Amino acid sequence: MTSTFVAEFIGTFILILLGCGVNANVTLEKTYGHGSGWIVITTGWAFAVFSAVAIAGPYSGAHINPAVSIGLAAAGEFPWAEVPAYVLAQVLGAMLGAFFVWLTHRDHFNQTADPGAQLGVFSTGPAIANRGLNILSEAIGTFVLVFTVLYFTDATLTEPETTIGLGSLGALPVALLVWGIGLSLGGTTGYAINPARDLGPRIIHALVPISGKGASGWGYSWVPIAGPVLGALVAAGLYLVLG
Amino acid sequence: MTSTFVAEFIGTFILILLGCGVNANVTLEKTYGHGSGWIVITTGWAFAVFSAVAIAGPYSGAHINPAVSIGLAAAGEFPWAEVPAYVLAQVLGAMLGAFFVWLTHRDHFNQTADPGAQLGVFSTGPAIANRGLNILSEAIGTFVLVFTVLYFTDATLTEPETTIGLGSLGALPVALLVWGIGLSLGGTTGYAINPARDLGPRIIHALVPISGKGASGWGYSWVPIAGPVLGALVAAGLYLVLG
Amino acid sequence: MTSTFVAEFIGTFILILLGCGVNANVTLEKTYGHGSGWIVITTGWAFAVFSAVAIAGPYSGAHINPAVSIGLAAAGEFPWAEVPAYVLAQVLGAMLGAFFVWLTHRDHFNQTADPGAQLGVFSTGPAIANRGLNILSEAIGTFVLVFTVLYFTDATLTEPETTIGLGSLGALPVALLVWGIGLSLGGTTGYAINPARDLGPRIIHALVPISGKGASGWGYSWVPIAGPVLGALVAAGLYLVLG
Amino acid sequence: MTSTFVAEFIGTFILILLGCGVNANVTLEKTYGHGSGWIVITTGWAFAVFSAVAIAGPYSGAHINPAVSIGLAAAGEFPWAEVPAYVLAQVLGAMLGAFFVWLTHRDHFNQTADPGAQLGVFSTGPAIANRGLNILSEAIGTFVLVFTVLYFTDATLTEPETTIGLGSLGALPVALLVWGIGLSLGGTTGYAINPARDLGPRIIHALVPISGKGASGWGYSWVPIAGPVLGALVAAGLYLVLG
Repeated sequence: MTSTFVAEFIGTFILILLGCGVNANVTLEKTYGHGSGWIVITTGWAFAVFSAVAIAGPYSGAHINPAVSIGLAAAGEFPWAEVPAYVLAQVLGAMLGAFFVWLTHRDHFNQTADPGAQLGVFSTGPAIANRGLNILSEAIGTFVLVFTVLYFTDATLTEPETTIGLGSLGALPVALLVWGIGLSLGGTTGYAINPARDLGPRIIHALVPISGKGASGWGYSWVPIAGPVLGALVAAGLYLVLG
Repeated sequence: MTSTFVAEFIGTFILILLGCGVNANVTLEKTYGHGSGWIVITTGWAFAVFSAVAIAGPYSGAHINPAVSIGLAAAGEFPWAEVPAYVLAQVLGAMLGAFFVWLTHRDHFNQTADPGAQLGVFSTGPAIANRGLNILSEAIGTFVLVFTVLYFTDATLTEPETTIGLGSLGALPVALLVWGIGLSLGGTTGYAINPARDLGPRIIHALVPISGKGASGWGYSWVPIAGPVLGALVAAGLYLVLG
Repeated sequence: MTSTFVAEFIGTFILILLGCGVNANVTLEKTYGHGSGWIVITTGWAFAVFSAVAIAGPYSGAHINPAVSIGLAAAGEFPWAEVPAYVLAQVLGAMLGAFFVWLTHRDHFNQTADPGAQLGVFSTGPAIANRGLNILSEAIGTFVLVFTVLYFTDATLTEPETTIGLGSLGALPVALLVWGIGLSLGGTTGYAINPARDLGPRIIHALVPISGKGASGWGYSWVPIAGPVLGALVAAGLYLVLG
Repeated sequence: MTSTFVAEFIGTFILILLGCGVNANVTLEKTYGHGSGWIVITTGWAFAVFSAVAIAGPYSGAHINPAVSIGLAAAGEFPWAEVPAYVLAQVLGAMLGAFFVWLTHRDHFNQTADPGAQLGVFSTGPAIANRGLNILSEAIGTFVLVFTVLYFTDATLTEPETTIGLGSLGALPVALLVWGIGLSLGGTTGYAINPARDLGPRIIHALVPISGKGASGWGYSWVPIAGPVLGALVAAGLYLVLG
């Protein structure tokens, strides 16, 4: 992991490979997990986060999410100058992850007639379209993510004053947090809570061939960007106010 | 987090935002998690607890539950003088959390015809009405919560005699405990086991507009207050007897 | 916790209160978790173990299972002289736990017509009756439990030579182990893997009034005693052979 | 555990006893977990990994998978000379585990008419047959496994420079990783991601008597060997490139 760029790229690749992978498994026809429901979706995304953070955490902090990078920067916990490279790496990594999900599930995509189900493997969409409430849903989900991450604490030793690293178990809290956000706040918009997670796979959806493919939903695509950024900024602001 | 009041307020806000959020996701029409069942409900509440305790734990101890504050006070582990402010913060935080669940799910509430399902997003009710057994159910669930919390131990180093803080992973035991209580003892009354968790959202239910809204169930509302307080006091008493 | 007897009694009480509680929630009519399936059953039992071990672990080692006490004794890790008191405390604690499950779910028991479902809340039975294979199933499940517990290791510090206690998180491995055993090996006999877990509740089933109650299955009751003891002894023997 | 051979044998025995056990529980007729779905399958395999790694980890590193042994060797983290003995122990242990799953579930096998369901308890097969994509699926799943394992880090103390062992909790990250891989990437080929996990049980399927038994699927049997080995080598190569 020679650079934070590579670490964010690989981390977000793993996140989306597993995350869009569980979408494919639950949504597409003839998979072994077809129709296995919300518990599988949310548990899959949780351990996608776990795996990605376990890999990239020691090298880049494993933001794997532009909203996290922006939120940490706004809270003074990360240099603004590094945000563009992080975001670029995250979007590119997400694209690669989604590409491999498509490739391995190609036969299953082609046996799934519903273009909405096909798109849903890649990107989020609203359960009930309502731009204001959809943005609010994404903002609140991301607020919980970024605000809680800002308050996460490392393991410590009281005496002597040292820091204990829990190793890869240190990736567990953020995975459990995302598990909870998905279970609880994902019902309205599918909890993008991460602009790269939505945009990268949507670009791949637009590019790859799928039998019976429909539109890539670009009219909605700004919502899972604007909502998470808004939520991250509010989280950072509240964090700064509370001290 | 300038005060324990703010910490309890925010912690309980997060608890109820995620907790009543998972109720909304599973119960209301047209959500992505509609009908996903008891495993989703209980896992959602477990990681709601995790997130809330991870945030508020270092600042207020993260009681986020009047029964815990009262139980710890009765056991001599928390000053009685601080209980009223903790409880007030918890109820207000719970109200704010329930408000945002309503706001983000407004369209879903309006498409859900059953007023009982609408109320169930906010507050608990008995599966079979029987005041004595309902109070007993809430008391026993809360007894397990408070009694176990009283016996939770921190990480330690044998030599030298120091305490290790596990950081945010230290919020995991109480989350797993609440997961277990919900799975196992939640079938009769919906495991309020927390007066603020039930009262705060019920007040919001009474205040917000919902298409086809029914009564707020005030006749039952004292049960998820009295039962948990009773259970907490018994837990504290047994803890003191056992030493 | 003035004695190991009290600790084992209370630990097993909590184990069965939560464990038979989740059975009641999933099996009985009109509960909120009715019909929620094997994932709820096994997760409920896992965190029942977690809660019980978190409470009793520092005081008695939290065997909460005669097969564990016997297995540890046979492996030379626990004095045989203490086994009878441990077993008695475990059976009595299991009885008390099952009593409270019955009491809180009394209305649900009375609305559940099937006497087999009623008994299933308390005690295990074979999916397909076959004494030899049923004993083998219980023996193998308990073998995995006791053998793995014998190989569990505490947290350590390489330098200086000290022991770290993880606090209540130290109760997690055995909970995950029981989760796995239930998911994987529980399909044939319902994984008693603990004579007290089966016998104590069965005694309560025989004693309490339930509308339409059937027989208590005493003809099978020796299987979830003999199988687990056999499995524990094999585990201890193999542990001693392997060194 | 007098040798790494014994440790790998026992670890893989436990892995397959529990892993093929959960397959049997979900797939076969009249088990308590019949039809309980993908969440049960994947959770069962996750804690099968946990239990196996908790036992064998301190003695052999708990590869319990030829792809892991080969991947670690290719990455320079394990001596090539030890790979053959590890692989042999893994395959033999997998055979013993599958044998006991068959033995305890014998009546359930005989009441399950579908020979594909019978074979599915032992070995994996493609949801949609496509040799190229099936190999790719197995390669990518194994890539994620081996690559992430290569980046797993132990717990550390900053000062003094020591290593903390988390004890059996240290087996949790790989269990969560396999949970995630199964949920997310298991939908196409059933995630063997381990040649021993597939080959050992397939041999047992060929040997044991089952009423109405069909073919053992030898035509596909090289896919869950070649795919995982390929994925492991790519993971090792990328790990070496990234440094």
